[in-house]
Amino acid sequence: MFDLKEYISEKKAKVDEFIKSYFNPSIIPSILHESVLYSLTAGGKRLRPILCIASYEACGGLQDITPYASAIEFIHTYSLIHDDLPAMDNDDLRRGKPTNHKVFGEGIAILAGDGLLTEAFRILSNTSYANVDPSNLIKVIQELSSSTGVYGMVGGQALDLISEGKEPDREIVEFIHLNKTAKLISASVKSGAILANADSEQIKKIEKYGLSIGLAFQIVDDILDIEGTTEKLGKPKGSDEKKGKMTYPKVFGIEASKKKAKELIDIALRAIENFDQKAEPLREIAKYIIKRSS
Amino acid sequence: MFDLKEYISEKKAKVDEFIKSYFNPSIIPSILHESVLYSLTAGGKRLRPILCIASYEACGGLQDITPYASAIEFIHTYSLIHDDLPAMDNDDLRRGKPTNHKVFGEGIAILAGDGLLTEAFRILSNTSYANVDPSNLIKVIQELSSSTGVYGMVGGQALDLISEGKEPDREIVEFIHLNKTAKLISASVKSGAILANADSEQIKKIEKYGLSIGLAFQIVDDILDIEGTTEKLGKPKGSDEKKGKMTYPKVFGIEASKKKAKELIDIALRAIENFDQKAEPLREIAKYIIKRSS
Repeated sequence: MFDLKEYISEKKAKVDEFIKSYFNPSIIPSILHESVLYSLTAGGKRLRPILCIASYEACGGLQDITPYASAIEFIHTYSLIHDDLPAMDNDDLRRGKPTNHKVFGEGIAILAGDGLLTEAFRILSNTSYANVDPSNLIKVIQELSSSTGVYGMVGGQALDLISEGKEPDREIVEFIHLNKTAKLISASVKSGAILANADSEQIKKIEKYGLSIGLAFQIVDDILDIEGTTEKLGKPKGSDEKKGKMTYPKVFGIEASKKKAKELIDIALRAIENFDQKAEPLREIAKYIIKRSS
Repeated sequence: MFDLKEYISEKKAKVDEFIKSYFNPSIIPSILHESVLYSLTAGGKRLRPILCIASYEACGGLQDITPYASAIEFIHTYSLIHDDLPAMDNDDLRRGKPTNHKVFGEGIAILAGDGLLTEAFRILSNTSYANVDPSNLIKVIQELSSSTGVYGMVGGQALDLISEGKEPDREIVEFIHLNKTAKLISASVKSGAILANADSEQIKKIEKYGLSIGLAFQIVDDILDIEGTTEKLGKPKGSDEKKGKMTYPKVFGIEASKKKAKELIDIALRAIENFDQKAEPLREIAKYIIKRSS
């Protein structure tokens, strides 16, 4: 029997270990070093790197690609630090702890985000972490940068920012969810598939899986902001509503949102139904995402 | 006779053309698109991409690598947008125009910087721009990310930020200048050499050239802030002094700074003295950097 909890805890331990070993504090200004480590070790679930590794293994990969998977956590963490800034979402708490700029100041928080984003690409262009084809690493960098730049996450975040307080709009919320959240999650699994030398047919399926769970993940997040508890969220509930955020429940209502999330998880599971038992972690993670909302 | 002005204007035109053609406004939120283009076309001299191309040609490269060279301008521009933010240097003017956040607001300015940094790596991982070996592109990405992350530019910027108002300190100013300015300039020429398949001996010389002119460039910048005119600088002179910045003249005095800049240019010229006439642009650019201060 496959044990998701054990699987996640094992992969998470490796990601945590890589993150802790990555920085050389003797050649980084100490406040910057503290700032990047603070956010990298603030209790993240490591969902994206674990998805990357699970996808790599589902596609037959046999090496330890923890460093490359961890680079995705660097990108995710940078995005959280910048999202929390006063000029953006202006959040004081993240996972129950003060946000980076609350502890280190805005200037250092901006630099910590910039540094993490840059270090992600430094890790991904280091060919010594595993025996992988440089042209696969180039493809991974292309995939991750395309999903997180102005044509991806940054574009989604910009529309999110300027849509605060606007009337519910289906096209806008779909653009935001796709770009701000789903593309990086999809890129995480696609990167794993690319590193495993998956063929284009497999990569297409993995991409469909990734976009579907990515959209479901964001819809569930929107639902939890309404129905969750402050304790579980690590920040006050109802903050989307308070900020006038364009959320899925705001546009479609809460019941339709739950239904949509469930449908998306079904689509994700169908996309990888022909994969063998090595895809069990991917399947269980998809089911876990929907369970969070119930 | 080699004409530097003509050389620069020809290369600059190509970089400008690439930048203008790069973005697809139909799939980027319009305010983000305006914001990135605003700063990318705000009158930059394109020094870093031109250095990259000049180094590529000096090492025997024959293709048009404008896109890869332009990616370095994306990185440079992101760093300027973030440096100008209120939480950082809090500058209202850059090259005589209002800074990005003054026009588009802080949130969009942060995202524009994030987007430009990410798009730089998207360009560098696109193998269709020229016929280059993917493993050379990986090396270029490794070089540029190492020079601009927490072990490079971001680290230098962090120390610059926390050293404001502190007593003059030789080690600190040298760390800041090396990391904040010289490493990216050095990485620009190294990237050109790597793309041209230069051997390790050539790359070492190019790196020495790059670090030397990079340090000289920053020292000249410090001097101009004292001796230049507001018109020439595009911002009020004396702003380093006003902010209590750790500058070279503050630590060593203005005459010693001028002498040091000249020495560094001599070191740069000696480093590439065995290169043939294809290195003339590199030599003339080095001389041009020192001329700015006199």
